[in-house]
Amino acid sequence: MLQLDDLDRAILKLLKEDARLTISEISEKLNKPESTIHFRIRKLQERGVIERYTIIIGEDLRPKHVAFLILRVEKPIIEDFLERYLEYITKTLSMLPNVLMVAKSEEDKIIALVGEETQEKLDKFIEDNIRSIPTLKEVLVFPIITFKKGEEIIGFLAGI
Amino acid sequence: MLQLDDLDRAILKLLKEDARLTISEISEKLNKPESTIHFRIRKLQERGVIERYTIIIGEDLRPKHVAFLILRVEKPIIEDFLERYLEYITKTLSMLPNVLMVAKSEEDKIIALVGEETQEKLDKFIEDNIRSIPTLKEVLVFPIITFKKGEEIIGFLAGI
Repeated sequence: MLQLDDLDRAILKLLKEDARLTISEISEKLNKPESTIHFRIRKLQERGVIERYTIIIGEDLRPKHVAFLILRVEKPIIEDFLERYLEYITKTLSMLPNVLMVAKSEEDKIIALVGEETQEKLDKFIEDNIRSIPTLKEVLVFPIITFKKGEEIIGFLAGI
Repeated sequence: MLQLDDLDRAILKLLKEDARLTISEISEKLNKPESTIHFRIRKLQERGVIERYTIIIGEDLRPKHVAFLILRVEKPIIEDFLERYLEYITKTLSMLPNVLMVAKSEEDKIIALVGEETQEKLDKFIEDNIRSIPTLKEVLVFPIITFKKGEEIIGFLAGI
């Protein structure tokens, strides 16, 4: 397990809020010499604690209507094929731009996060592109009405 | 709706991959004058297309075991109380550091993403901190075995 001290954590918190802060701004906020901040950030990057720097896309470009899906795959006659079905479906889904996230869950289940500009388009997308996938037994749709925490994942995952 | 042209999109794509690219690096990659790149980025920020800059936390600091939860709230005798129950539960959940994301879904349903270092700790967290919430009728757990797309949300949502 990685050892981080309070200064490392304080730097990470600041960069999480605003990754454009300069060394001298961070140095001032945390009341530490610039050379220390510079060294720590370099170390955090080298150790992979900071994996990379990115942008969050603003609301206007985010899909307005998002839903979590729980998909259940048809159990194949030859049991060994289940893994292939799961692989095929998750791969197919991950290539669709409206699919923001896909993951395999236990047994025959797949989780996905999908988004579109309007509710109608989202419904149509689910109908045309997801429910139509062969070997899919069930699609449960959980629309997101409001986020309480983590809303920015949509701005993070949104395609451009 | 925001109007973005190809150059805007190309800049956004580059910054999404690596928000530390300098104006001159972007200028070189896209074969456009630095002044143009500078102006476009300023505009993208002003218009809120780029909401903010952030870091993605590397694997070592991410929770290793994550699960999506679908929670169903007990239907109160006085129907108007359902909204209060939902509000109370989502607020409670959003204050817990192991809860990475919380959202209200339709009717009596809440969606959450939870994470912990080990499977045992995650199970215990769900048992002790979620199943124990009063007015909660049902907790469905969908562990994530492997991500196919969007895995970085965990590095984006991970606490420090």
